[in-house]
Amino acid sequence: MQKVHVVPDGPAFSELVQGYWRMGEWDRSLQSHLRFLEQHLELGITTVDHAHVYGGDPSCEALFGDVLKLQPSLRSKLEIVSKCGIELVDHQDVRVNHYDASPNAIRASVETSLRRLGTDYLDVLLLHRPDLLLDADAVADTFNELHQEGKVQHFGVSNFTNTQFALLQSRLEKPLVTNQVEINPVNLNTVNDGTLEFLQQHRVRPMAWSCLAGGHIFGDQSTQMTRLRHTLEDIANELSVDAIDQVVYAWVRRLPSKPVVIIGSGDITRVQRAVDALNLSLSQEQWYRIWVASMGHGVP
Amino acid sequence: MQKVHVVPDGPAFSELVQGYWRMGEWDRSLQSHLRFLEQHLELGITTVDHAHVYGGDPSCEALFGDVLKLQPSLRSKLEIVSKCGIELVDHQDVRVNHYDASPNAIRASVETSLRRLGTDYLDVLLLHRPDLLLDADAVADTFNELHQEGKVQHFGVSNFTNTQFALLQSRLEKPLVTNQVEINPVNLNTVNDGTLEFLQQHRVRPMAWSCLAGGHIFGDQSTQMTRLRHTLEDIANELSVDAIDQVVYAWVRRLPSKPVVIIGSGDITRVQRAVDALNLSLSQEQWYRIWVASMGHGVP
Amino acid sequence: MQKVHVVPDGPAFSELVQGYWRMGEWDRSLQSHLRFLEQHLELGITTVDHAHVYGGDPSCEALFGDVLKLQPSLRSKLEIVSKCGIELVDHQDVRVNHYDASPNAIRASVETSLRRLGTDYLDVLLLHRPDLLLDADAVADTFNELHQEGKVQHFGVSNFTNTQFALLQSRLEKPLVTNQVEINPVNLNTVNDGTLEFLQQHRVRPMAWSCLAGGHIFGDQSTQMTRLRHTLEDIANELSVDAIDQVVYAWVRRLPSKPVVIIGSGDITRVQRAVDALNLSLSQEQWYRIWVASMGHGVP
Repeated sequence: MQKVHVVPDGPAFSELVQGYWRMGEWDRSLQSHLRFLEQHLELGITTVDHAHVYGGDPSCEALFGDVLKLQPSLRSKLEIVSKCGIELVDHQDVRVNHYDASPNAIRASVETSLRRLGTDYLDVLLLHRPDLLLDADAVADTFNELHQEGKVQHFGVSNFTNTQFALLQSRLEKPLVTNQVEINPVNLNTVNDGTLEFLQQHRVRPMAWSCLAGGHIFGDQSTQMTRLRHTLEDIANELSVDAIDQVVYAWVRRLPSKPVVIIGSGDITRVQRAVDALNLSLSQEQWYRIWVASMGHGVP
Repeated sequence: MQKVHVVPDGPAFSELVQGYWRMGEWDRSLQSHLRFLEQHLELGITTVDHAHVYGGDPSCEALFGDVLKLQPSLRSKLEIVSKCGIELVDHQDVRVNHYDASPNAIRASVETSLRRLGTDYLDVLLLHRPDLLLDADAVADTFNELHQEGKVQHFGVSNFTNTQFALLQSRLEKPLVTNQVEINPVNLNTVNDGTLEFLQQHRVRPMAWSCLAGGHIFGDQSTQMTRLRHTLEDIANELSVDAIDQVVYAWVRRLPSKPVVIIGSGDITRVQRAVDALNLSLSQEQWYRIWVASMGHGVP
Repeated sequence: MQKVHVVPDGPAFSELVQGYWRMGEWDRSLQSHLRFLEQHLELGITTVDHAHVYGGDPSCEALFGDVLKLQPSLRSKLEIVSKCGIELVDHQDVRVNHYDASPNAIRASVETSLRRLGTDYLDVLLLHRPDLLLDADAVADTFNELHQEGKVQHFGVSNFTNTQFALLQSRLEKPLVTNQVEINPVNLNTVNDGTLEFLQQHRVRPMAWSCLAGGHIFGDQSTQMTRLRHTLEDIANELSVDAIDQVVYAWVRRLPSKPVVIIGSGDITRVQRAVDALNLSLSQEQWYRIWVASMGHGVP
């Protein structure tokens, strides 16, 4: 699999990223987790996606750290992305879920992530959500300190609007390396509202989360989803592939902002399918047929 | 009639542009088409608006090309604007209407337009609609090639959002010369949503399509339209003009982004009326009375 | 009370601004008005907010001017902000309320404000509302002339979108010093839609109008307002303060765009309460509890 720079002169990611937010639900032994990790590494998927808030007890980061302890040499083969900035009621003495991009919160989150993962550094740290109280100068100072201390190599954001991205970028010397956003044919917001076009302008490749819309593409019986599924099946036939998830991955990757796709499954056969889909290429018209099926109306 | 630069140092258009998208419906002989063309040229309307997708069989471009063959010397007196980037079910072997700003599609469309029009060059080529799959680097390369080949002198867009405009402009050395958008007192979107203010900032004059809202201003009995028509009639009286379309043209031209108005009618008396309206000037308050009549509520 | 620069190298305002738009309703003698003015000056509130359209007959500006005549030396202790650009049916021979940022309208409004206030200069002039017919080059010329004539020291805007702000700023050499916008926990538009983030990016401090949502926070029985009031009361208890308006001021001032708060009350005990609230500091979580109570749902 190709490695790609998510921004020019920025870090290199594998074109597919293994998401670990459901790791806790995979319900397997550490040895079995290790085997899965080795398998996706063999497929070329070297970038893994974590966040401070993923998982329960233990957190996904801690579980992943335990797996890495079985084979510490794997660390250097990985690009680890993690995220900070969400405070959840479940996790701490918190009365309401909220965001927190204050220096203390960022630093505490990074220190925790490093300890859980058993690593000295994160390849990339993302602000998980846009904190409405974000002080861009303070965040920039904190990023610079974490970089100088060798704890974080690159910084990015997730679920940011263009205005929020521009604000934070205005205070940083180095480019934010990505904006991790929802991209799938069910929720077309980031496709339609200019988020991806802004990233293309600045040559920042998005990371695409929830490409399969949380699995709703497969079974949901709503009108929109049924219509969309039929179109995906038609196109799977036209492309002679077995599975509509492959068509969806090709649909996301067809976007000119060149999203890096996050795979959420812990099933190596599904991961393999996503890898196989890297060769699929939708025509301009096939891409729009999926867009039209989702919207329920033609282009304007 | 004055000629105006749509961007500083850009191409000069007549302040009114003759639209040819309904040419096929005018149902007249080639000689009669030629007479109409000569008439609006005499009025000073030298800029004509076409698109690859206008018309049926024959296309409006082909019909216009046949008219030009009767009097080839007219070509040099015209600024021909045409557009590319829409693929219609009616026109080709296409299953769903969609947009296509890929290099192959742009080039094929331009070659077709030139052949139909029987001309060596377009003065201005517009991307007709924002293709969500638009690769700005690829479009820029294609624009540069078409320019070097002498096939297109200037480039612009149509129906683009500000984000889409900024993306494409970021890859071009020369300014996009216009954004052709809907402007009329019925659909106030581009007036209210910042599209025109962004163009003013960048000193790009919009081309205004559908100034008369497809004729709905004259006869539609809806509450909004009746209220609007009454206000237009009041102001026509105040200005001592006969026709509300003249008030509408003056309303559009009052906008500080300085729209160049496209006239859709093939009736030379209506075109003459639009020319006469160039001298009309609405007061600040008259302009807002029309805005208020359309919105159905006062300013905030 | 601290003085703060609303933009770097810009004018210094007191952190709280005394609003005078309801001055006419305070129903007191000129001597009593003067006492109130001296009292808030003693508290450190040196910046006062006016507008051409505030009040009836007499206008608030004229009333304030009469107060200043009793003690002319106070002028030099004040920063007077006033606004232009609204034409009201009530005030003039006008058929519909509208905006007007034409050079003549701006100039006439400033001359009237200066005459009414009995002063030679305004510290800051704001365009009160975004005129859709605003010609940014013409406004810039007018601003420059008014500045050279010594009639206005600084310029800003009010209720402008980011696009409108960027347009006008693009024609000015000196920065617009503020965008005076509605900020309160009831109407979260400017908090949620990027207006404040854009101002933070450009280091422009907003002036916050209607922080108490026109008093609705205190008594309105709607579901939203009741829920919000209960949360404000809880947090008032946690912070050991008596009044929820203090919590609201602290909530507004917690925003990282650092709003300068306008106080609308003419009651010096309420003004004193706002001054006391300058020391209040909400936690990140307390701020979000108020946001959630207003929205009626959690963060995304």
